[in-house]
Amino acid sequence: MLIQRLTIIGVGLIGGSLARALKQAGACGEIVGCGRNRSHLQQAIDLGVIDRYDTDPANAVKNADMVVLAVPLGTMAPMFAAIREALSSKTIITDAGSAKASVVADARQHLAQHFPRFVPGHPIAGTEKSGVAASFAELFENHRVILTPLEETDSQAVSLVTQMWEKTGANVVQMSVEHHDDVLAATSHLPHLLAYSLVDTLATMDDRTEIFGFAAGGFRDFTRIASSDPRMWHDICVANRDAIIKVLELFNDNLAQLAQAISKGDSQEIEDIFTRAKTARDQFV
Amino acid sequence: MLIQRLTIIGVGLIGGSLARALKQAGACGEIVGCGRNRSHLQQAIDLGVIDRYDTDPANAVKNADMVVLAVPLGTMAPMFAAIREALSSKTIITDAGSAKASVVADARQHLAQHFPRFVPGHPIAGTEKSGVAASFAELFENHRVILTPLEETDSQAVSLVTQMWEKTGANVVQMSVEHHDDVLAATSHLPHLLAYSLVDTLATMDDRTEIFGFAAGGFRDFTRIASSDPRMWHDICVANRDAIIKVLELFNDNLAQLAQAISKGDSQEIEDIFTRAKTARDQFV
Repeated sequence: MLIQRLTIIGVGLIGGSLARALKQAGACGEIVGCGRNRSHLQQAIDLGVIDRYDTDPANAVKNADMVVLAVPLGTMAPMFAAIREALSSKTIITDAGSAKASVVADARQHLAQHFPRFVPGHPIAGTEKSGVAASFAELFENHRVILTPLEETDSQAVSLVTQMWEKTGANVVQMSVEHHDDVLAATSHLPHLLAYSLVDTLATMDDRTEIFGFAAGGFRDFTRIASSDPRMWHDICVANRDAIIKVLELFNDNLAQLAQAISKGDSQEIEDIFTRAKTARDQFV
Repeated sequence: MLIQRLTIIGVGLIGGSLARALKQAGACGEIVGCGRNRSHLQQAIDLGVIDRYDTDPANAVKNADMVVLAVPLGTMAPMFAAIREALSSKTIITDAGSAKASVVADARQHLAQHFPRFVPGHPIAGTEKSGVAASFAELFENHRVILTPLEETDSQAVSLVTQMWEKTGANVVQMSVEHHDDVLAATSHLPHLLAYSLVDTLATMDDRTEIFGFAAGGFRDFTRIASSDPRMWHDICVANRDAIIKVLELFNDNLAQLAQAISKGDSQEIEDIFTRAKTARDQFV
């Protein structure tokens, strides 16, 4: 048994899928869920995702060997503060937040003496859906999980968190906090902003009903991520602001160059951009 | 038999899928393919998509009851010019171009006396793939086909083109040329530009190999359309320039507003945009 008692704070798509995968792998003794909404937690029990729940974070983490925070980024700081006094000197803490600098700062401030046993983590998996009903055990299979341990992070804590994610079928890698936040701003946060902004642009047009009626499969795929949870994505934008603004400026320059090429009828430039993009996507994705 | 002899100029994804669907429906006597590349046309015969081919457009349209142009928009004008002399006074001509004002102008100029029997059309279907090998009979099922007939367009020609597309399982609607070009700029052309530009932005970063390595499913869906044919999309940008630039400006305003909200940490504004977008997508798409 890898983990005798696991507490998952935030039993939604990510937390719920982690619980399901670890249960399926027989990696946990008991899984305790924690959240604010009793009916959601009861649903998690009914679905067999968790064994029991406690809505009080301090109670929920008592005697836990591992605590996973899978809550929106804006909730990390108060949650660290709420559990600090209840943590044992051996409890390992990790998270599933989509930006790492902000979580590390929150943990450093609020976990105090427990900070060396905090392993910042981020599973690169998800769908546009939210909630425990959308969770499934295979969500992390063959997906990457990025850990961003710091110099003071306990190596045994890193090792256990790595083993936990490997039990879900994920491929665990390490990188620096800063690099994680840059890479995710480019590959995840920016695409979400563009999808939200495109749909909002069309939604504010007069003939929006007709416009959306003529959207084909390409549009559906392109805008799927605009169905993601607004609160969660608000928190990501606030937490990873600097990296997002940086890559957004690069994108704006590229788009302005393309717009100018279209305005001027510069065929060579238009085709160059499209061809470079197609080549990169066909090669890398 | 709806059409005794059908000539399809451009036997790729769209032309090939139309041929397959009409064969399956038993709607055509003979289907003649036309294109520049003999090996592609031979492949279309081998796949059972067309019955015979001719690489000379004038020969290919001889005695045809219906001619469908499914070629890139930049090829429409020379193709109209190439077939004009060989058309009979009864041949109906239609196209599958993604922008309509430019095709109508080309047809008006080059089809001359045949222009009233030209029915501008656009099936709202496709994938990021190209070529006859990617074609399939079900491509148009439950998809819209937009026809944009003009005042001088022969009503019997419109009726036959409508029936042809209905045989593929498509839902045929009519609108004005200008409205078509505005709607498609918003729902199809702009998303393609954004996808191309995003991938190109990332492809020109130093650590692009690693960056693409951390792209998850959302990114894959979001950028699928950036694998579309660069030449075809170049032609669309040139042909529908004005409508594209217009909607691109609306998008730029929206994105700038979002960027400013993120920079300022304006939580209300960020969540408003995301929530409006999610609501619209969940409701309409």
